[in-house]
Amino acid sequence: MERIGEQTIKFNTPPTILEAASIVGPKESQGPMAKYFDQCIEDEFWGEKSWEKAESKFVKETVSGVISKSGIPVSDIEYCFAGDLLNQCISSSFGLRELNIPFFGVFGACSTFVESMCLGSMFVASGAAKNVLCATSSHFCSAEKQFRFPLELGNQRPPTSQWTVTGSGAVILSACGTGPYITHITPGKIVDMGIKDANNMGAAMAPAALATLITHFRDTGRKPSYYDAIITGDLGHIGKEILTELAETKGYNIASVYNDCGVLIFDKNKQDTHSGGSGCGCIASVFSGYFFKQLKQGKMKRILLIATGALMNSTTTQQGESIPGIAHAISIEV
Amino acid sequence: MERIGEQTIKFNTPPTILEAASIVGPKESQGPMAKYFDQCIEDEFWGEKSWEKAESKFVKETVSGVISKSGIPVSDIEYCFAGDLLNQCISSSFGLRELNIPFFGVFGACSTFVESMCLGSMFVASGAAKNVLCATSSHFCSAEKQFRFPLELGNQRPPTSQWTVTGSGAVILSACGTGPYITHITPGKIVDMGIKDANNMGAAMAPAALATLITHFRDTGRKPSYYDAIITGDLGHIGKEILTELAETKGYNIASVYNDCGVLIFDKNKQDTHSGGSGCGCIASVFSGYFFKQLKQGKMKRILLIATGALMNSTTTQQGESIPGIAHAISIEV
Repeated sequence: MERIGEQTIKFNTPPTILEAASIVGPKESQGPMAKYFDQCIEDEFWGEKSWEKAESKFVKETVSGVISKSGIPVSDIEYCFAGDLLNQCISSSFGLRELNIPFFGVFGACSTFVESMCLGSMFVASGAAKNVLCATSSHFCSAEKQFRFPLELGNQRPPTSQWTVTGSGAVILSACGTGPYITHITPGKIVDMGIKDANNMGAAMAPAALATLITHFRDTGRKPSYYDAIITGDLGHIGKEILTELAETKGYNIASVYNDCGVLIFDKNKQDTHSGGSGCGCIASVFSGYFFKQLKQGKMKRILLIATGALMNSTTTQQGESIPGIAHAISIEV
Repeated sequence: MERIGEQTIKFNTPPTILEAASIVGPKESQGPMAKYFDQCIEDEFWGEKSWEKAESKFVKETVSGVISKSGIPVSDIEYCFAGDLLNQCISSSFGLRELNIPFFGVFGACSTFVESMCLGSMFVASGAAKNVLCATSSHFCSAEKQFRFPLELGNQRPPTSQWTVTGSGAVILSACGTGPYITHITPGKIVDMGIKDANNMGAAMAPAALATLITHFRDTGRKPSYYDAIITGDLGHIGKEILTELAETKGYNIASVYNDCGVLIFDKNKQDTHSGGSGCGCIASVFSGYFFKQLKQGKMKRILLIATGALMNSTTTQQGESIPGIAHAISIEV
């Protein structure tokens, strides 16, 4: 591998995304992406006694699904990279505690899926591992309870707010395989532009997405037109618009190739989610369910996947802090 | 690099731990390790308005300290790996939001320091980076508030409980340097033996430490006597005793070389911490303050550093879950 430009690593022996799996909850099952997911669960509890336990089950079953699809024995998967939004990343650690694979806990808020794939691809590309697993989840009910208000209160949500996706996505990265390949990673810096509204995550995260996007272009010498699709994690409708405009001011017209998983996962008109979807499970399920298949079937050849995260918690909001954003990008090519 | 045995990676071009820094709080400043730390802060708030902001300041100042000691310009440090115990790892993201270095958030509870060094050393050893930064923190007051009870309640602590270290440690890993070198990493699996007492973390984490310890010995063919010191992160007095006994039953007598940072950082007789220190900041500050210097000065030549984490939160405890443990090990040699 080699370091190119300021932040990007180019893999000379790029890892293959061997297989991907996704499981989503009830609202996502009624959205436009429903047919692409492996499983649509009609019950937010999925038979468990709490939302937290349900979220762990989403992770566990998604990981079990991707391993079984790949045909690789668990003993041949050397390392696992996983994280989520719950305090101390409990969905991942409880969901995967029986997995018996060396475990790296990752926290990048909603950027966790791509952060995991950055780290996982390093292990594969460097020869340290033949196969690694990357997994992420979020759950609307556990996230609302933890970050905002108990659902039972029936609080009104402002128009800028996004709807945390109930879902999980997981991929296996492998040294053997015929693609799609992770050819470049561009890990991002923390960017805090002073946004303090915890109900407007899109605006808080868009500047971080911009920084990573532009750095990726500069480091690789590529332009937006190089990609069939540039996909952000969960900026939602408002954040998507902000990023498109910000990129334009920097001389990059991304409008024709750019979309956001938070925009894609719900129907703006029929599903009342305000500014779209969010949560680590958003990009994880939409990539694993939809984009991975597009690449695998050759319908898309090159995509830039950028997951964005807001690195705050409810205490920092209460203490009047602004919201630091981060965005990690990977280039995936067939 | 090459993968040896079941879980271990051996670096053929091992990264150097170029420099280390540590800052601790008032109780640690009265303990037996006080003289080894770079700074001892007498005020838990360190002039900030909240414990969370104070903890961020510990991270920020420690990182600033290690960079300045290393003499490396910030622009030559390519990636940063950091995490902590607070919900959504806010000490790290707020403490380092102005750092301007691509950032990987890591969560391994109290195993975070060594987890970060595992990941960081991979980036350096693979040639993806010349210099990386690894940092971790914990804070007694913010941790008690979040995991247990508000300090103002004056709750009594059971004898098995440990005292979260207020402190931070940071290291710079580099491709250039004359050691001490990280020669091997043995990332651990999640181990849950069913312990449910959140006031007995040592017992919950000891089986994970055992699993990683034995795997490291088996993978490398080494024995306890190979090392001048085997150091765990924060098993405390009870956990240390359990690990020593468990290792004995598996045929490894570690008693003569083994110690624990939670045992070392406080004076058992003069400081009322019950079972010793804990928190990500424990191993981070004790390694950066004491062991790094022992290695640098040639007083120790080979140490095995094992950080242990309890991957739970207060919700899982309330929901009656047991405590999954994890332990990551690195071998450091001059």
